[in-house]
Amino acid sequence: MVKPTARYAYDGLDRVMHEKARLSLLTALITHPKGLSFTELKQHCGLTDGNLSRHMKVLQDAGLVAAVKGYDDNRPLTTVTITPAGQQQFLEYLSVLEQVLRDAAPLPASLTATFPDAEPDLV
Amino acid sequence: MVKPTARYAYDGLDRVMHEKARLSLLTALITHPKGLSFTELKQHCGLTDGNLSRHMKVLQDAGLVAAVKGYDDNRPLTTVTITPAGQQQFLEYLSVLEQVLRDAAPLPASLTATFPDAEPDLV
Repeated sequence: MVKPTARYAYDGLDRVMHEKARLSLLTALITHPKGLSFTELKQHCGLTDGNLSRHMKVLQDAGLVAAVKGYDDNRPLTTVTITPAGQQQFLEYLSVLEQVLRDAAPLPASLTATFPDAEPDLV
Repeated sequence: MVKPTARYAYDGLDRVMHEKARLSLLTALITHPKGLSFTELKQHCGLTDGNLSRHMKVLQDAGLVAAVKGYDDNRPLTTVTITPAGQQQFLEYLSVLEQVLRDAAPLPASLTATFPDAEPDLV
């Protein structure tokens, strides 16, 4: 028996990237191609040390981000960057999010009942 | 000390709605205002009986969806609908998803390096 198409299954919503904190980290990193420090990531994403470290491990294990040890003004500084594979996979993930928004779009149209400016009053 | 703004924290990505299967169910339901049967939901969302029942309970407990018992051709048929509160909260959730896409948008612009049709060859 052929399985019916699961129109709204969104298999591309990979759980590694879809988790809220990791989605936050990846968005921060894809918009900062030169990378961000741990301190910047915590601030931008509203994460504690523990949360950042836990989610960084998941993202690193999946090959989506990399932590590069370097120096800033002679002090050791680790910079986190999104990897090329991470960039590609995150863009694919984002295209599925876009699909979700397109699929859910019919509703705003139905809201024109509340804001019927498309239907001028002919009386 | 004032907490710095967490630009990419996306607090509106409520975990009840953000979970992949529940996001799938809510998208299917918001696009079917008259509701869907359990069978239709399983097909549209690619869920097993067990998964559907588990995620339905979470969504019902949160007041986002309702199951109405009725009849179809004299056979009992339960129809699941999104509640008005569910519709409102899901739209708010979707607006946060839109924000994620807007935030991540700078990258596609950089992809014009690969598809430089905005930069005609002047040679």
